[in-house]
Amino acid sequence: MKSQLRAHVFRMIEVARFGDFSSHCVDVFVLSLIATNIIAVIIGSDVHIHAQYGEWLDLFALMSISLFAVEYILRVWTCVEHPEGNHSKPATGRLKYIFSPLMILDLFVVIFFYLPPDYAVDLRILRLFRLLAMLRLTHYSEALQLLTAIIKRESKTFTAIFLVIVSLLLLVSYFIYLIEHDVQPKAFASIPDAMWWSISTLTTVGYGDVVPVTVMGKVFGMFVMLIGIGMFAIPTGILVSAFSQELKRKDFVATWNLVAKVPLFSNLDAVEISSITELLRLRSVMPGELIVRKGEVAERMYFIVAGEVEVELENHSAKLSDGDFFG
Amino acid sequence: MKSQLRAHVFRMIEVARFGDFSSHCVDVFVLSLIATNIIAVIIGSDVHIHAQYGEWLDLFALMSISLFAVEYILRVWTCVEHPEGNHSKPATGRLKYIFSPLMILDLFVVIFFYLPPDYAVDLRILRLFRLLAMLRLTHYSEALQLLTAIIKRESKTFTAIFLVIVSLLLLVSYFIYLIEHDVQPKAFASIPDAMWWSISTLTTVGYGDVVPVTVMGKVFGMFVMLIGIGMFAIPTGILVSAFSQELKRKDFVATWNLVAKVPLFSNLDAVEISSITELLRLRSVMPGELIVRKGEVAERMYFIVAGEVEVELENHSAKLSDGDFFG
Amino acid sequence: MKSQLRAHVFRMIEVARFGDFSSHCVDVFVLSLIATNIIAVIIGSDVHIHAQYGEWLDLFALMSISLFAVEYILRVWTCVEHPEGNHSKPATGRLKYIFSPLMILDLFVVIFFYLPPDYAVDLRILRLFRLLAMLRLTHYSEALQLLTAIIKRESKTFTAIFLVIVSLLLLVSYFIYLIEHDVQPKAFASIPDAMWWSISTLTTVGYGDVVPVTVMGKVFGMFVMLIGIGMFAIPTGILVSAFSQELKRKDFVATWNLVAKVPLFSNLDAVEISSITELLRLRSVMPGELIVRKGEVAERMYFIVAGEVEVELENHSAKLSDGDFFG
Amino acid sequence: MKSQLRAHVFRMIEVARFGDFSSHCVDVFVLSLIATNIIAVIIGSDVHIHAQYGEWLDLFALMSISLFAVEYILRVWTCVEHPEGNHSKPATGRLKYIFSPLMILDLFVVIFFYLPPDYAVDLRILRLFRLLAMLRLTHYSEALQLLTAIIKRESKTFTAIFLVIVSLLLLVSYFIYLIEHDVQPKAFASIPDAMWWSISTLTTVGYGDVVPVTVMGKVFGMFVMLIGIGMFAIPTGILVSAFSQELKRKDFVATWNLVAKVPLFSNLDAVEISSITELLRLRSVMPGELIVRKGEVAERMYFIVAGEVEVELENHSAKLSDGDFFG
Repeated sequence: MKSQLRAHVFRMIEVARFGDFSSHCVDVFVLSLIATNIIAVIIGSDVHIHAQYGEWLDLFALMSISLFAVEYILRVWTCVEHPEGNHSKPATGRLKYIFSPLMILDLFVVIFFYLPPDYAVDLRILRLFRLLAMLRLTHYSEALQLLTAIIKRESKTFTAIFLVIVSLLLLVSYFIYLIEHDVQPKAFASIPDAMWWSISTLTTVGYGDVVPVTVMGKVFGMFVMLIGIGMFAIPTGILVSAFSQELKRKDFVATWNLVAKVPLFSNLDAVEISSITELLRLRSVMPGELIVRKGEVAERMYFIVAGEVEVELENHSAKLSDGDFFG
Repeated sequence: MKSQLRAHVFRMIEVARFGDFSSHCVDVFVLSLIATNIIAVIIGSDVHIHAQYGEWLDLFALMSISLFAVEYILRVWTCVEHPEGNHSKPATGRLKYIFSPLMILDLFVVIFFYLPPDYAVDLRILRLFRLLAMLRLTHYSEALQLLTAIIKRESKTFTAIFLVIVSLLLLVSYFIYLIEHDVQPKAFASIPDAMWWSISTLTTVGYGDVVPVTVMGKVFGMFVMLIGIGMFAIPTGILVSAFSQELKRKDFVATWNLVAKVPLFSNLDAVEISSITELLRLRSVMPGELIVRKGEVAERMYFIVAGEVEVELENHSAKLSDGDFFG
Repeated sequence: MKSQLRAHVFRMIEVARFGDFSSHCVDVFVLSLIATNIIAVIIGSDVHIHAQYGEWLDLFALMSISLFAVEYILRVWTCVEHPEGNHSKPATGRLKYIFSPLMILDLFVVIFFYLPPDYAVDLRILRLFRLLAMLRLTHYSEALQLLTAIIKRESKTFTAIFLVIVSLLLLVSYFIYLIEHDVQPKAFASIPDAMWWSISTLTTVGYGDVVPVTVMGKVFGMFVMLIGIGMFAIPTGILVSAFSQELKRKDFVATWNLVAKVPLFSNLDAVEISSITELLRLRSVMPGELIVRKGEVAERMYFIVAGEVEVELENHSAKLSDGDFFG
Repeated sequence: MKSQLRAHVFRMIEVARFGDFSSHCVDVFVLSLIATNIIAVIIGSDVHIHAQYGEWLDLFALMSISLFAVEYILRVWTCVEHPEGNHSKPATGRLKYIFSPLMILDLFVVIFFYLPPDYAVDLRILRLFRLLAMLRLTHYSEALQLLTAIIKRESKTFTAIFLVIVSLLLLVSYFIYLIEHDVQPKAFASIPDAMWWSISTLTTVGYGDVVPVTVMGKVFGMFVMLIGIGMFAIPTGILVSAFSQELKRKDFVATWNLVAKVPLFSNLDAVEISSITELLRLRSVMPGELIVRKGEVAERMYFIVAGEVEVELENHSAKLSDGDFFG
């Protein structure tokens, strides 16, 4: 009984699968609540708005934090229902769930709000991560997952580059400190102070609030600026290569099965299919949708994997079905 | 009769097909008029020039706006003649046409000019879009169309990245506001105010008009600058991958038919042709044009798809025709 | 007789082919003279140095300009000797040569120096182009030629992008002018003035000398900064794709012939060779050079196209020759 | 005897191979010492910290420099033990070793510290390179080695680009000097002074401390900013291409042997293997590790090269071993 209720509540809180109307409503409500809270935090930071609508905003904050607290407790209670079974053990599973990054953030939002006045901070804006997590499950998921996958897979490379950048930063800061410290004892008071200039120059931000004034400092500064170009080119280069490779592999398995279905290709062996697979792209067409306009220069060939296509030619129309192709 | 006149006017207004001289003249006139108007707006904004030539510029604006209005009416009247037939129904077709983005812009240009003095704005500069639309149909079309195609196809990815960037921006603004608000109550008056610093740092613009001054603010600022590098690398990475893939596919169909015509390749099967296709590039040669100079190191092989090529060797010259190759 | 002298002088002035010692000396002399002149121009611009060494620098300028003038005349005289025969006709060929960009620059350097004091400008720094032209013929040529080739081949695309950028610039300048003109009548005095801010923001330079102050101006400014990211991503994307394609094609013909020579591959057909060709890389080895160290993990396979390789194994050494492979 | 001691000391100092515990301890000690020294240099530069803890920091510096000196002498003494045998000759081998870049840096750190007070500089921060060298041998090595390999292989290209950039810089500085010198005799005092503006604009850093004020200077400035975009796009383009090519080749040999082992592919010829090789990716799995979760959409196919895999299906589990595949 209790287990059944828990399963029901879990289904409500989780992002709805297609077709579950009541759960979908809960999603929309939570999403709107988070979005409204974020907007409230942002506009509430303005002095004039706070003076005028401060009470209402505070009331709204209090109410929504309470709702967040309820949601938090419900999440912890129902987490054992996760179909992947990561948290199925009541005690350890729940503990593991509580210490997942998103849950810690959610807890922070609630706790820091209820702290004694001196320490209370309004962290509702951190619910942004929950917002992104909910969107992650919608149709934007593919692109973000690809990016996350690449960053994970190339994490070693990025760590290596990060180490090099930090070393570079330390050296640049040290030398500019040696060079400029005597002339500008305030702006280049210490190596950590010099880092402000170094990093704003290496990343080509260039605020201009701190600038070397000695001849040697300027010569060194020019050199640092030129290195800054490399700091963009190298990570971009790695990311682009990783992206191309990942996309290639991803497309591959998806198209393979389709290619094998097209009769024209049926007598090809595995390698030949693989070559063709690289060049094809899956496209789903809704019934009645126009694939290509008559008279347009055909830039692609179309192979029909499933369904029928009607082709209108000069004076008659033909129907093509599975395995036929045109283009 | 009326329909014939309308068809004639339509042909005049539309960008001319090759060989239609009178329509071409109209194009050149409209193009020049738009260009002149844009230049007039730009130089007319200068106080000294306006003081001296203001009357002439106003007269020119009035005249050209009237011409634009006439053109607008003619466009609406003749739009049913579009060969693609999108607007062929007199009533709904025209309405659809009137609400196409370019036509709305054209209407704005005319209307805002004729408004009562207090609201009148000179929007002739928006005709720039019409200018670009006309150029789109000329020989620069290919590159721009490729770019538009990629942006459309990857729109989901770009939306996802845009969402991540906006979230990042909100978080960065929120934290810098918390950190710097007490020390710089003016520059970081509210979160929207803090956004100005956040975005100018994340995009590496770095005006330097607003800069964190506290130690924590500077440490956070360094961190934000480093993130800024990723903001260039990621969109670039996605765009580059998309570009490479699109170019590969585009070249493919174009060269396929040519390859199939060259006798040397006639006994290859589909996959082998596809491999070769990837490496070839279509090149049209004018009669009499020099393909490759004698003595130059040959970096390419040339296959003749159609026509004849004369090869001058040491002491004689040979004629090669369809299907032969050299290089 | 005169023609023989002219041919001799031509050989002297032109960049020396390998082994021609006296012509090589002339090259080194001209190169050094140009480099020294450029340095003289740069350090001569400093007031203190000019005050102290001004007379010597002026004398040196006078002397080298005279030499440049002599070289210019000799070049024009001997240009008919060009082996490519572009300028072989004494009159029209010479005229064509005189109006080639580099020669016009050389002429400017001489003429502007001898003009009456009010107009005389020291343009010796433009000889930089001559310097680059001389270096272009040395071993850095390949990389620069590849770059020039790509820029030429993709010139249409770059023109299209340039048009879009200019349009964007005009629109951004127009709107920021409308928004900020009333509040900052000095910094945004006219649209051309507003362009200074627009371009420094779109290119992410961000001097910060001119900055929008109104709320709407700041919101618009944030939007413009975000667009700036695209201005880097798009040209980079196009360049990268073009580069990859060009490199692929370039490698292809160079390796093809080598692959065909290796016995292991002799029974492959054209397409199979093309696949392999993509993966190989030509490497020339000097006699006695170490190709791969014993014990290193072999990351490549080596195919011997010409010559012999000695392989030292645990307890004996073997000689491999043409067509063998190891790795 | 002495040789044995020397070999032992060498093993201690060098980065430990897996399993050598005592040598590993020495590594950790040296690494920590270097890291602590770097931190000491950085925080010791702060005036307040130096006032309070200066004596302790100086003592620590003295002690660690002495240890560095000892390490330096031991390194020179034992360098003849290098297994690669580069430095096996007592006299010349050692001299060659002493003049390797890292050893010169190490010597500098020690010498400059012991110089008479007026010239003494604390260069302990340069030990950063030794730190990086030690990390280079750990698991981040691959990514950094790839980067170093590419930069070495493309060094000609990068030199060519560097030459073009320097030329561009000189020309831009020269012209902005001509244009702005009369109006801003201080900021644009000489061409080297003008370089500060040129380089900060070309690299899009844009400090804004020096800015052209004349109309012509601003027009020229806009032009220079636009060129700046190319300065990012071109090196990035080259790097990306080089990266993609290198990764492709690197993967190739590594996967080739594995592919040849899978029975499904055994009847393929060399070219076909090469096509497949491009699409596979080596993945080592620890015993007990989960390869793919049940119910997840399979995006990859897995081929087992060595070992066994247990597959859990709906109602039974199967064991797959070498040569089988699933996915």
